[in-house]
Amino acid sequence: MEAGNRMKENELRSLLNDLSLEEKIGQLVQLSGEFFKADDISIGPQQKLGITQRIVDLTGSILNVAGAKVTMDIQKRQMEKQPHHIPVLFMSDVIYGYKTIYPIPLGLGATWNPELIKKAFNTAANEAAAAGNHVTFAPMVDVAHDARWGRVLESPGEDPFLNASFAKNMVEGLQEDLVTGEGQIACVKHFAAYGAVEAGREYNTVDMSQSNLFQNYLPPYKAALDAGAKIVMTALNSLNGVPVTANKEILVDLLRKKWGFDGVVISDYASIYELIKHGFASDELDASQKAFAATVDIDMKSSCYANNLEPLLKSGRISEEKINKATWRVLSIKNELGLFEDPFRGISVEKEKKRILSRGERLLARRVSEESIVMLKNKDNILPLNSSLKIALIGPYSDSQELLGMWAVHGNSKDTVSIKQGFEQYVEKENLLVAKGTDLIDDSKILREMNFLSEEQIEKIVSSESVRKSNEKKAIDVATKSDIVVMVLGEHTLESGEAGSKTNLHLSKNQRLLLKKISKLGKKIVLVVISGRPLVLTDVEPEVDAILEAWFPGTEGGNAIANIVFGKANPSGRLSMSFPYDEGQEPLYYNQLVTGRPINKSQHVGRYVSKYIDNPNAPLYPFGYGLSYSQIEYGEIVLEKNKIKLGEDLRVQIELFNNSAYDSLETVQVYLNDKVASVVQPEKKLIDFKKVHVNAKSRVTVDFTIKPNSLSFFNNNGERLIEKGAFTLLVGRNSVDLAEKNFEVF
Amino acid sequence: MEAGNRMKENELRSLLNDLSLEEKIGQLVQLSGEFFKADDISIGPQQKLGITQRIVDLTGSILNVAGAKVTMDIQKRQMEKQPHHIPVLFMSDVIYGYKTIYPIPLGLGATWNPELIKKAFNTAANEAAAAGNHVTFAPMVDVAHDARWGRVLESPGEDPFLNASFAKNMVEGLQEDLVTGEGQIACVKHFAAYGAVEAGREYNTVDMSQSNLFQNYLPPYKAALDAGAKIVMTALNSLNGVPVTANKEILVDLLRKKWGFDGVVISDYASIYELIKHGFASDELDASQKAFAATVDIDMKSSCYANNLEPLLKSGRISEEKINKATWRVLSIKNELGLFEDPFRGISVEKEKKRILSRGERLLARRVSEESIVMLKNKDNILPLNSSLKIALIGPYSDSQELLGMWAVHGNSKDTVSIKQGFEQYVEKENLLVAKGTDLIDDSKILREMNFLSEEQIEKIVSSESVRKSNEKKAIDVATKSDIVVMVLGEHTLESGEAGSKTNLHLSKNQRLLLKKISKLGKKIVLVVISGRPLVLTDVEPEVDAILEAWFPGTEGGNAIANIVFGKANPSGRLSMSFPYDEGQEPLYYNQLVTGRPINKSQHVGRYVSKYIDNPNAPLYPFGYGLSYSQIEYGEIVLEKNKIKLGEDLRVQIELFNNSAYDSLETVQVYLNDKVASVVQPEKKLIDFKKVHVNAKSRVTVDFTIKPNSLSFFNNNGERLIEKGAFTLLVGRNSVDLAEKNFEVF
Repeated sequence: MEAGNRMKENELRSLLNDLSLEEKIGQLVQLSGEFFKADDISIGPQQKLGITQRIVDLTGSILNVAGAKVTMDIQKRQMEKQPHHIPVLFMSDVIYGYKTIYPIPLGLGATWNPELIKKAFNTAANEAAAAGNHVTFAPMVDVAHDARWGRVLESPGEDPFLNASFAKNMVEGLQEDLVTGEGQIACVKHFAAYGAVEAGREYNTVDMSQSNLFQNYLPPYKAALDAGAKIVMTALNSLNGVPVTANKEILVDLLRKKWGFDGVVISDYASIYELIKHGFASDELDASQKAFAATVDIDMKSSCYANNLEPLLKSGRISEEKINKATWRVLSIKNELGLFEDPFRGISVEKEKKRILSRGERLLARRVSEESIVMLKNKDNILPLNSSLKIALIGPYSDSQELLGMWAVHGNSKDTVSIKQGFEQYVEKENLLVAKGTDLIDDSKILREMNFLSEEQIEKIVSSESVRKSNEKKAIDVATKSDIVVMVLGEHTLESGEAGSKTNLHLSKNQRLLLKKISKLGKKIVLVVISGRPLVLTDVEPEVDAILEAWFPGTEGGNAIANIVFGKANPSGRLSMSFPYDEGQEPLYYNQLVTGRPINKSQHVGRYVSKYIDNPNAPLYPFGYGLSYSQIEYGEIVLEKNKIKLGEDLRVQIELFNNSAYDSLETVQVYLNDKVASVVQPEKKLIDFKKVHVNAKSRVTVDFTIKPNSLSFFNNNGERLIEKGAFTLLVGRNSVDLAEKNFEVF
Repeated sequence: MEAGNRMKENELRSLLNDLSLEEKIGQLVQLSGEFFKADDISIGPQQKLGITQRIVDLTGSILNVAGAKVTMDIQKRQMEKQPHHIPVLFMSDVIYGYKTIYPIPLGLGATWNPELIKKAFNTAANEAAAAGNHVTFAPMVDVAHDARWGRVLESPGEDPFLNASFAKNMVEGLQEDLVTGEGQIACVKHFAAYGAVEAGREYNTVDMSQSNLFQNYLPPYKAALDAGAKIVMTALNSLNGVPVTANKEILVDLLRKKWGFDGVVISDYASIYELIKHGFASDELDASQKAFAATVDIDMKSSCYANNLEPLLKSGRISEEKINKATWRVLSIKNELGLFEDPFRGISVEKEKKRILSRGERLLARRVSEESIVMLKNKDNILPLNSSLKIALIGPYSDSQELLGMWAVHGNSKDTVSIKQGFEQYVEKENLLVAKGTDLIDDSKILREMNFLSEEQIEKIVSSESVRKSNEKKAIDVATKSDIVVMVLGEHTLESGEAGSKTNLHLSKNQRLLLKKISKLGKKIVLVVISGRPLVLTDVEPEVDAILEAWFPGTEGGNAIANIVFGKANPSGRLSMSFPYDEGQEPLYYNQLVTGRPINKSQHVGRYVSKYIDNPNAPLYPFGYGLSYSQIEYGEIVLEKNKIKLGEDLRVQIELFNNSAYDSLETVQVYLNDKVASVVQPEKKLIDFKKVHVNAKSRVTVDFTIKPNSLSFFNNNGERLIEKGAFTLLVGRNSVDLAEKNFEVF
């Protein structure tokens, strides 16, 4: 970023020197919007949290308040209370869009198009910045191996290289326009390895070797930092027995020292307080000391720092120098944003109005959504559909605007294009027969246990017996009258995202039952799946002719799905996370380490190989998988050399041929196998990919340059190693359908 | 062991010095019995493995050959071929009995009676020793957290303390009679952490932190070594990226140096060769070098050492000194067994005949089996049954001798007492109506893929449609005629044990269907489950009135089950492994680390806690759980002090009261919670237990002395720490039903 009209370092330093201890501590506290609604009503939450009004007044940053007017009002009020008129930072969850909502990040991952997502994040940041948000708690780049974990919704996927590519581009997109006040500062999360919660259960323990941590989990965070992310959020989990929010090995030794990160580290929501819950700290004083010693600068949403930093300092358990350092890091962020010159920088009611849900934003969202949709099955090329057919559009998502997913905090489903609306762009009214068919959830118990829904809300989600029957009857009725059935089934919004861990990854029973009944009518069926995670589709796959995985597709979801279904857009999404054959396979991911008795080698057949006896090891749909309306042919892999020196690049070429009538976007995937290494390696790991246009009836040559680091791996000291020897390069359309070429490094 | 008439160290040393290189290498090779069937027919397997006849002649140990006559014959022949007439070691899988088969080790774990199992292992060793076996590949003490893993069958369970107690007693039992030639040398396995294979898939990757390894996985192996186990078997898996068979950190730094183990390390079956499969070694030469450098002394069943130690020595990649050291360790074992004085020591056709399946052995096996059976449900005290009732005994295991489980290598099902035979001891013939009802397996695909069963064998297991129908008809018929139904359902032998990993832990569909049909008849149903692992019984539990988990109960299984069912024995088994509510909870174990958002604390209710939204976190039946015919009442926990000094013992007392008419064996379980620690601790961990007699209508006081080490834990440097502070002691009948008392360590 250019220096622009920022404060000089010495000016900022003298401001810091001028601050009282309580002013400094205020900078290290983050509170949520409820404290700042109006001067006189903040007493409620403040008492609840157990902090003084003085700390509320001096708070350095505010969580999840959005809107140009409200942020400007609060900024004005808060600055007046600050003795040195320090502006507050507004931080917010703009995870996959602010008001214009993109597909959930797992869908963004499925685009395999980080450059496109860079644009999306740039545009999201523009929207949010105009509405007064300085910092977004994105990108979330936790590598996720377990579809049971609800929060896979927020992750680009299961692969460190793919997630790292997205991490880099997301950060660049968010921060690109910081200079003009139209960008957002990126807060990468959840550092580190939150994606590996045991048994896919939310907030659960994470435990792994150093080689695994460095090889599979750290690269995306590192890529975000290398791209300039200025804030890091700590993970809620413990890692190898130490909660990350107080984990010196991770935060001090690795992040601060080894990686040299000097930006702000912020806790996750109340995670400093939760050190007590973890049995890692005896009380708030102890928790504060431990988090602070691990260089956590900002305490999000707990009373720990607010009430305990001063006693800790007074009793000599922390130093003023360290408090100064943390405060300096927070002030530096504010200075980089130019807030000392203009606390309202970038915020504008007019711009907000103009930006939000603009035509340009919507078109981009639609394109992203199109590229995120993965065609999993297309028997007899039933897709794309002829729009003159009589279509029965059936399912709980057929006529629903609830397409935003669990963590579109500022999004509004009223702005969302439903699938019915999308289809109406193509199909004459009398040819489009719509029926809900059934509910998303068959048992209200799930909802009741969440403890925040009223009975009335629950009854809206889970229908009475009589409504169920009439819904089903209508669905069978419209299906009977139709030429073809498009069923839109999936998960309820509340079934995925944070704290949406599930042991059962099937579609709900009633949805499967409806599908079975409809499939008995003998019509062709296209299944569109709306979900926040990979589901088990093993039992429904044989019942349908085509499957589109559409995730929670966002504001323009209905249009994007319609464009794919009717062939205006050629499906180009590829899975960034394996779709299990059965829940009992989890955790499941393509780049597992080779075992001593692999199933894929010929030497061991029969019982004594690494497998399940009752189900395949393989997923139903593998990482990288996705069909298109064109079947692209792959030529031979051409290696520039078959022997390279250690440290040398290797150029690779492959020719693609599109013999179809559809222009196509093809994702060429390059995997590596290191045949012998001093740390056991995966059978294959993604080292490069390119999403390229291959027009109808034409050829394209795709080039890759394999860099030495792609041949490297990490040992248990966290050291990167590259070893000479034999390698195999594998190139193809997904992680299974690959051609290979050997080469040697000497 | 007493010196007895063993060789002196200098004599043994001079023997070693006298050996040629190839003789030494021979000592480091283990081949299976097929090589030694007769002098002239061993050429086949030898060619297959690719080794010379010379190495076969010089082989130091032989795998899985049993029987007094055959071992003596082979010993005689082999010694003649050995230039120095060194006797061979016979090693064998006597995992839970030689000919008299005890329950599978998961059932042994469920006895919570290590002293009893010490006797069982002593007796098994006596049987096996008489039959010429010097070494058994037991105890297997891998801590197992995942019921998907088939090999949980061989493990005492999920808890490090419980497994360590069994490890100690098993080793002591096996080796107790070594001096008289009637014991067996214990080979503890699978070192280390094989029980943590990812996703419960056999032979899969193991990856964990050092604190987890030291806290949860190493203690049972260590206990076995402390009890004197003389041989260690390496695990097949990689641990933190390095195959254990070549893992210097585990074998050299930990086992040899830190723990000072100077006995023999043997590979698992072909695991040196499998270093190549793992991508850790480039060829057999490389694999041999790496395993040898990790101090693996004996190569089990591969050609690696046989063909490569000499070239490695000649090229200076290994030293003669190291070969001498490995050979020395093998010779020392033989010397300890007294084989140089009497190569046929302890072996005797007569003794073999007398010992095997003797009345004493059978009675012991019956008692062990009784203590292993866990009563999971007993609605309205339906059990024990009145033997004058008309009983329908239904299910594939009702009249079957296949009760030995997958790894009773030398056992014979013909020697086994079926459940029908057991019931006939109690029930008049005309009152016992027996029907198979259905098959264990509903789909032959599982069997076909194992690749070693003939179609004829498969057809015996999976019946034709017409046989199925008549089986079902007969079952419903006998159920209709009966006063009460006892259903014996479960897993087929081939569905568990090594390489029996499954994603689906339910009873097979056809068994559940049969149960459903029978339950519709309205009769009371007692379910007896025969299985090699914890199954998911969630859906069948409501259909039945009582459940007995009987594991694979061994030779005396039928009698033991009958004794429990008819009340001769009072059930005293307690689960040593959690029974999941759903497969999607796996891995599942009671001593999980505390999270920052625990479900059991009041602060966090609703959605944002560590839980699944669709199923409980808790298992259906927890660790330590099991009912009896007496409900023992627990008095107050009495602590000698509520504050102790660091390093001090703490005495605990609790009074038990048996108000029932049944004498009872009650297992009092003591758990600990360390409230604040520098490594996150489990909510509770087992630190002691006692299985005590509490006679009908009487009181017993049980004492425990909590030793300082029980308050300790391990950090990521593998260091044991004890920290001052607040603790809670929890005492009760299982891991959930506990009373608690706080105490402090200062």
